[in-house]
Amino acid sequence: MARTAGSHGARTAEAIRRAGLRLIFERGYEGMTLRDLAQAVGLQPGSLYNHIATKQALLFELVSEHMRTLTDALDAALAGVEGPLARLDAFVTFHVSYHLTRKVEVFVNNSELRSLEPDNREAIMALRRAYEQRLAAILAEGAQAGLLAVPDIPVTTYGILSLLTGVVTWYRPEGRLAEDEIVAIHRRLILDGLRGGGG
Amino acid sequence: MARTAGSHGARTAEAIRRAGLRLIFERGYEGMTLRDLAQAVGLQPGSLYNHIATKQALLFELVSEHMRTLTDALDAALAGVEGPLARLDAFVTFHVSYHLTRKVEVFVNNSELRSLEPDNREAIMALRRAYEQRLAAILAEGAQAGLLAVPDIPVTTYGILSLLTGVVTWYRPEGRLAEDEIVAIHRRLILDGLRGGGG
Repeated sequence: MARTAGSHGARTAEAIRRAGLRLIFERGYEGMTLRDLAQAVGLQPGSLYNHIATKQALLFELVSEHMRTLTDALDAALAGVEGPLARLDAFVTFHVSYHLTRKVEVFVNNSELRSLEPDNREAIMALRRAYEQRLAAILAEGAQAGLLAVPDIPVTTYGILSLLTGVVTWYRPEGRLAEDEIVAIHRRLILDGLRGGGG
Repeated sequence: MARTAGSHGARTAEAIRRAGLRLIFERGYEGMTLRDLAQAVGLQPGSLYNHIATKQALLFELVSEHMRTLTDALDAALAGVEGPLARLDAFVTFHVSYHLTRKVEVFVNNSELRSLEPDNREAIMALRRAYEQRLAAILAEGAQAGLLAVPDIPVTTYGILSLLTGVVTWYRPEGRLAEDEIVAIHRRLILDGLRGGGG
């Protein structure tokens, strides 16, 4: 079915995706029935099938859409930024800012990898590797140019991603720190570490 | 029922906990029935109730046991270690090493917080805060002594914990790096950051 932006069908499909993401976040993929989902968007269970083929197809769409949107936004943030230090800076700024408001997406993407059928899971792992690879390439370029001291590129790549994505676990929009302060703290942690004090 | 180490009842209870952890990891709390669990340990569903009161009680026991064991092991690792730099070093070494083989426990502890009833969740959050507080105290002591440059103690605490716990997502015992190499990489990342190169 073609999706026409703003059409009734497209708005219903988007409402289904939003409700599906929320229900999987709250109850887990196994815990969400299509009956719950239909009820959440005010459809008869049978009408849901006009919009999604299966619960598995919905999960795959939610998880892959998150990865594609994330990667496209990263590429836009890195476009035209030259040199590994500036690119690392742009990466950190982008990844932290993007994730501050993606708690639900990140949780579902991490907790329900197990619920993807093998081909779907493999497709998502490929999207993840492509994203990780962009950071790994920045680190490799910086190390090669003698601008970054990278103890081990794969472990550092995973470590930085875990550190930065960790903001989803504690960030509250009404909290103590502004977005740019949170970004600045993470840039300092990654570039400078904790050694030495100001005291 | 008193648990006598090595008694039949204690061994059954331990088998139930192990199987429950595995099933929740694979299917989620909502996706695991007590019938599945009974079958996994070779009991009749009715006999399970000799060992666990409810599915919720089992989840709470699994999650709280992980937090208590973790915190006790940290306290043992820090015992007698003096000075914030040495204590940070001991913390990093302990936390990374401990988590290398705790993928299943960490996944269940993070993904099923939502499934804990409010009082149980609050009890777990208190255990988590107590663990985090041990790292925060080391960072505060190091900053106060002018030995550590800590941009923001709460954010740095969460960031370090995310970074270090991230090993559960990629570590494989048969992988390229030995445990002490993985620890060393994480110590360098946290203490020195990436700025400057060897090239």
